[in-house]
Amino acid sequence: MTGVTRKIVEVLEGKTIAPPPIWLMRQAGRYLPEYRETRARAGTFLDLCYTPDLAVEVTLQPIRRYGFDAAILFSDILVIPDALKRNVRFVQGEGPRMDPIDVPGIERLRSQGVLDHLAPVIETVGRLRRVLPEETTLLGFCGAPWTVATYMIAGHGTPDQAPARLFAYRNPEAFERLLSVLAEISAEYLIAQIDAGADAVQIFDSWAGVLGEREFEAYATKPVARMIELVRSARPKAKIIAFAKGAGPNLKSYRQKTKADAIGLDWSVPLSFAAELQKDGPVQGNLDPMRVVAGGKSLEEGIDAILDRLGNGPLIFNLGHGITPEADPDHVTALVERVRGAKA
Amino acid sequence: MTGVTRKIVEVLEGKTIAPPPIWLMRQAGRYLPEYRETRARAGTFLDLCYTPDLAVEVTLQPIRRYGFDAAILFSDILVIPDALKRNVRFVQGEGPRMDPIDVPGIERLRSQGVLDHLAPVIETVGRLRRVLPEETTLLGFCGAPWTVATYMIAGHGTPDQAPARLFAYRNPEAFERLLSVLAEISAEYLIAQIDAGADAVQIFDSWAGVLGEREFEAYATKPVARMIELVRSARPKAKIIAFAKGAGPNLKSYRQKTKADAIGLDWSVPLSFAAELQKDGPVQGNLDPMRVVAGGKSLEEGIDAILDRLGNGPLIFNLGHGITPEADPDHVTALVERVRGAKA
Repeated sequence: MTGVTRKIVEVLEGKTIAPPPIWLMRQAGRYLPEYRETRARAGTFLDLCYTPDLAVEVTLQPIRRYGFDAAILFSDILVIPDALKRNVRFVQGEGPRMDPIDVPGIERLRSQGVLDHLAPVIETVGRLRRVLPEETTLLGFCGAPWTVATYMIAGHGTPDQAPARLFAYRNPEAFERLLSVLAEISAEYLIAQIDAGADAVQIFDSWAGVLGEREFEAYATKPVARMIELVRSARPKAKIIAFAKGAGPNLKSYRQKTKADAIGLDWSVPLSFAAELQKDGPVQGNLDPMRVVAGGKSLEEGIDAILDRLGNGPLIFNLGHGITPEADPDHVTALVERVRGAKA
Repeated sequence: MTGVTRKIVEVLEGKTIAPPPIWLMRQAGRYLPEYRETRARAGTFLDLCYTPDLAVEVTLQPIRRYGFDAAILFSDILVIPDALKRNVRFVQGEGPRMDPIDVPGIERLRSQGVLDHLAPVIETVGRLRRVLPEETTLLGFCGAPWTVATYMIAGHGTPDQAPARLFAYRNPEAFERLLSVLAEISAEYLIAQIDAGADAVQIFDSWAGVLGEREFEAYATKPVARMIELVRSARPKAKIIAFAKGAGPNLKSYRQKTKADAIGLDWSVPLSFAAELQKDGPVQGNLDPMRVVAGGKSLEEGIDAILDRLGNGPLIFNLGHGITPEADPDHVTALVERVRGAKA
């Protein structure tokens, strides 16, 4: 960085900025006509992730349109199992599929070649930093070991990740090995993103909410704490956001134990509880994405409630989950204007 | 009652009983071969719910096999929309379906005839109380307005009930009317179950976890508080358990505001938080159903953790969600024996 201040980095350092900086999870996505146009030119979804020209283009689209304070690398959390040769594919209308892994498969997992496989993603990060406006934070990301593991065990998404929970009860040692392999590979992957120009990274634990207390500690908190430790020991200034969806009452200890710079909050986190969490450090979130689909008064009320309760502390304004394809791009304009019009 | 004490009723009155009484959500279900045999003799799933001979039989099966402290009426939360003529059907392998409702449909909803339609269910309750062992608590139940409404809006289940959330943002007045109609009908339905012999009733809000703070208050807490108020004003001694799955940090205020006698806890509620909630009154839960599928050490550890943390206060031992078809009936035997072998 050349003396320029990037607001989201400042919030991650603990500063309160008013109005708060804003970006949206899945901001480069199907709700944008320009995304759908670029997507149609790629072959598979993974081709889009692995083709820097296209990945750079779709990452930049929402920045051009809305001037968000952060661009987030266009990729997917399942590039890690893809790099681990689990035969990942995205089936139209059905979501991701891969070959389910078993205990011998876990024992055979090797991290060699993973970063080579992901070289095009790292190239995308580097190119993005060179073309993004100076003031725009560039975010890298990866999935948390638990969430990535749930897909690797089941071979697809499930309503409450019962296959992974069951597998972990039955094969605790193999499961811990899987998480451990994923934590180490993911940490290396994040370091490579940081070295290529990412100002900060986010770890997505989209399925943290289906874990009981002990499993949350062992499978969500511990591997993410390990990842953050590995990243920080290599890159001491690394800034990290951890988003454990559905983690609810666990979030206080999750922040303390993972030592994430900021925690992401899903839309079900009550703002009264979010305000308590904010006393311990920066928070990110947490507008219900359905409010962006609805627009109008319900959008405005949702924005105002967050600004009222969390605007006086370190806050990165975001949704509580990814924006959906049904969202009207004009509603996003209204969202950004309302957040930016907030009084200091 | 003829002087006999029913343990679950005693816990609902605030007593601590050691070892704690136990029943399992969905204890009459597909994991039992005798259930599958009876199910095969019924036509549709709703035929099973509406045929007292068969519904009594499947309700009693787990009592005969395990001697649970409660029998729960065999029925479904969607009998209410069925009684409201929403064309409810259960499609093999796909879950429930019904005609999605719109704003004019909500305006046309009438509660006339609902209790007549549900007369066979009420008859089942009466018959059950006459044939159950004296010491067995008989539980009635219904769905909470929010959860029932999510299915009525979408016409089927969805991963995070986005259609109902969106509908409520777009049509808040119509949505509140829908919840209000459901709350009143459901309260009448619970009163009829109590009059027919139910010792206590449980209100299932399986989708409470997808609501933001304001919506949780307006759509989960308020209608359930209203139902409980209606039931208690008609039957002052009514005992009521409220189960708001995924409600996490909202559970403390949920109990206070709904005035439920006990709150049900899903398996994601940390035991440290559950112990705090127990200071305010009885709790029910919260073993991960996957531990029953796994059996062995992970089953034992899960049971022991709950007994250690919650066994010294008013507790109804239960799962954190319904038992699954894959559960081994012998694992349930081991579960019941371990809970009952717990030291006082």
